[in-house]
This record gives sequence, structure tokens and C-alpha cells, in this order.
Amino acid sequence: MYDISGWRHIFKLDPAKPISEAALRAVCTSETDAIVIGGTDQVTESNVSQLKFRVRRYSKPVALELSHIDSIVPGFDAYLIPTVLNSPDVTYHNGILFDALKAYGHLIDFDDVVFEGYIVLNPNSKVGEVTQAKTHLTIEDVETYAQMIESMYRLPVMYIEYSGTYGDVEKVKAAAEILSHTQLVYGGGITNLEEAQAMATHAHTIVVGNIIYEDLNQALKTVKIKELPE
Amino acid sequence: MYDISGWRHIFKLDPAKPISEAALRAVCTSETDAIVIGGTDQVTESNVSQLKFRVRRYSKPVALELSHIDSIVPGFDAYLIPTVLNSPDVTYHNGILFDALKAYGHLIDFDDVVFEGYIVLNPNSKVGEVTQAKTHLTIEDVETYAQMIESMYRLPVMYIEYSGTYGDVEKVKAAAEILSHTQLVYGGGITNLEEAQAMATHAHTIVVGNIIYEDLNQALKTVKIKELPE
Repeated sequence: MYDISGWRHIFKLDPAKPISEAALRAVCTSETDAIVIGGTDQVTESNVSQLKFRVRRYSKPVALELSHIDSIVPGFDAYLIPTVLNSPDVTYHNGILFDALKAYGHLIDFDDVVFEGYIVLNPNSKVGEVTQAKTHLTIEDVETYAQMIESMYRLPVMYIEYSGTYGDVEKVKAAAEILSHTQLVYGGGITNLEEAQAMATHAHTIVVGNIIYEDLNQALKTVKIKELPE
Repeated sequence: MYDISGWRHIFKLDPAKPISEAALRAVCTSETDAIVIGGTDQVTESNVSQLKFRVRRYSKPVALELSHIDSIVPGFDAYLIPTVLNSPDVTYHNGILFDALKAYGHLIDFDDVVFEGYIVLNPNSKVGEVTQAKTHLTIEDVETYAQMIESMYRLPVMYIEYSGTYGDVEKVKAAAEILSHTQLVYGGGITNLEEAQAMATHAHTIVVGNIIYEDLNQALKTVKIKELPE
């Protein structure tokens, strides 16, 4: 299993969104710990390959977060594979995974793979719509999922995904207080350093995505969360 | 996590089925490694408690295999919790688990728990009907689940459940050839030593259930699989 425990800040690039060379350079030469390529819509082998090729010119670790079997591309440092544990559709628990393993299992080096326990909490996001995740979770529900991920599934990562909307810090804090081994990753709606810091106080790792395309300077400032004590 | 890796032979008792004191004594004083209490139909807190009380008079380890949140009873050596990975219903992946953790999570000592990756392969069994598991799996499908359980979920146990019917030795063999860390458990339709040996040649652990109630002498003979080399 690839070790991402040293990652505190991740820039997530969407292969379906254009990004200028200058912006990509700024992102890839920032103090971020890693670049993750991933998205939900219009992710193809072609646009993933192209973006990987461009990011590979820099020295950051590059991971692919898999949401489709059609967009599996070799040559990444790590493959992040979500299991959406609050989806009512087994497709997003292990259905896509089954198809991926059946087709490519013999080619996979599992040392490069990180299996992520995902909890999707924004019903209006694309990932919320696709997975139909039960997003109306109480703090107690989030704690239950945290316990499930750490003590039953014993997954290396719990990923709280608010995709596009800034989330409830109290829920992230509640999950963090349950977890002692599993790495807590937060993603969704971070638009500035202050928001990044509020989440990074509880989550071990934060993921900054959309704001890269909307306000690059604000996005770049979020890497300062790395100055927070662990 | 409770370590069941030393178990090669298990007698599984159904709390809904009556068993005489003499038969219970024969089972519990046999060379079996453990007694598991579990069933699918009419399993209640009351009949689980009663059977546990009776089995506890002997020195074998006693585990409870949980299929219902209503039948959780304290005082077992281990709790085996299935996640049925070939069910199309998330209830049997982590839905029951969610309810159990939400209700009792604060009481659970996870050191006593074993999370089992279940594959149900008999469509006509009660567990097949209830979980609606996709039982028509090819050997390649079984290999894919084995890889998923070992390398992605990294579960301690893969349980091939033919519940009531003797299974396909080739599928058990195929799973065994994929697994190197995960313990392979086979259950279903073993009625004599020859059938037990055929499965125990591939599975690390075999579970003998129904035949206890139908032909106790044949059931007792199956413990001789422990003489097979590991």
C-alpha cells in the first residue's frame, strides 16, 4: 500500500477542466505535498493521460483517483480507489472495483494502491447525485462511519467529501476524534487559507480543487496550512 | 482483532434448532477448534443466550456470527461479522453493521471482532434469498473477489458460503490459489469426512453445520481433517 500519511495538502486537478501552463507550474511548484488527478464528469483515458504527462514534468508525487473503469491509466505514483460507504448503491461500494479488478487485476501492483473509505456529504454535488449517497448524516452518524472505517474495514484513509461546498467543521472534528490510526482527509469548497486552516485543524489532510480554476492566488495560499502543528 | 488463524475445523450450531445434551457434549468435546453460533432464521437474543450458556460449560472457544442486530449477546470469545460482498443490497455490505455500531459501538471491544468477506454461492439457501447475492459466479469472478478481499479490503477472512449445499471444489481451490494472507473459510453441505477433506485440502478452515442435526456420527468424523497437513 502506498503511504500517503505524509501528505497534509493536496491539489486536485480535474482532467476535464483546461488549465494554463503557467497555472499548472504554479500549482506543481508550490509547497503542496501531492497532485491528485480526478473528477466525476467527462473523465477519459485521453484527458487523464494528457494531464498526467504535463504534471509529470514536475517532481511532485502524482496520484490518480479512480471513479471510472474507463479512465485507468498506468504510470501514476499511487492509485486512490474510493469505496463510498454511505451510498445505497453497491456499484460505489465495490461494483466498479469488481469490474476494475476483473479487467486489470493481473496488472495492478497493490503496493501503489490506497483504498479510501469515502463519505459523501453534499447531495447537490455531481458525486452526490451519481452515488445517491445518504448525505443527511448527523454527527453521531459520521462518528459511526469513522468507527466502521477504522475498526471494522481498517482502511488507511477516511475521506469526507463535500465536493464543491464547504463542509461542516463539527462533523470533520467529530470524525477526527474517533480516528486514531486511519488518516482523515477532507475535501470540498475550500476557497481560502482561513477555510483550509479550519479544516486542517481536524483533518490530517486537506484537498484543494475547484478554487485552482477560479482564483489561483487564493488556492496557492492554502498550502500555508502546512505550517500548522500536526 | 481476534485471531482465528489456528482454527481449521468449526462446528456451527444454529440457535433455532434443538440439540440434545448428549449431542452437544459430543460436539463440544470433539477435536473441533471452535464452536460458532449462527443462523439466518429465527435467531433471537433469547435462543442465542441459551445456547451460549449451554456451550460455555465446555472449554472450546465460542464465537457468535452476527446476521441480525437483534441477536447481539455479550460474553462470546469472538464476534464474526460478515460483509456479503456479492450482494446487490448494501444492507448486507455495511447496513446492518452501521446500525449495530450506532447502537452498540461504544460497548464493542474490537479486539474480539473478526470482519469476514463473505461470498454467498447458493441461491436457494436462506442466506442466498435474504441477501439476493449474485451466486452465478465463474471461477474468474471468485478469483476477483479473492483478490478484492485480500488486496483491497485486506480482510482477515474470506468465507465461501454454500449454506446447505456442497459447493464447487474448483472455485474454493481457485480462491485459495489467489490468497496468501487472508484465511479461506469454507462452509456448506459437508456431510462426511470425504467431503470435508476435499474442501480442507484448499480452504484453511471448514465449517460443519447441518449434518450435526442430521447425522451426528458423520459430523463428528469430519474433525479428522485436522490430520491433513496445513
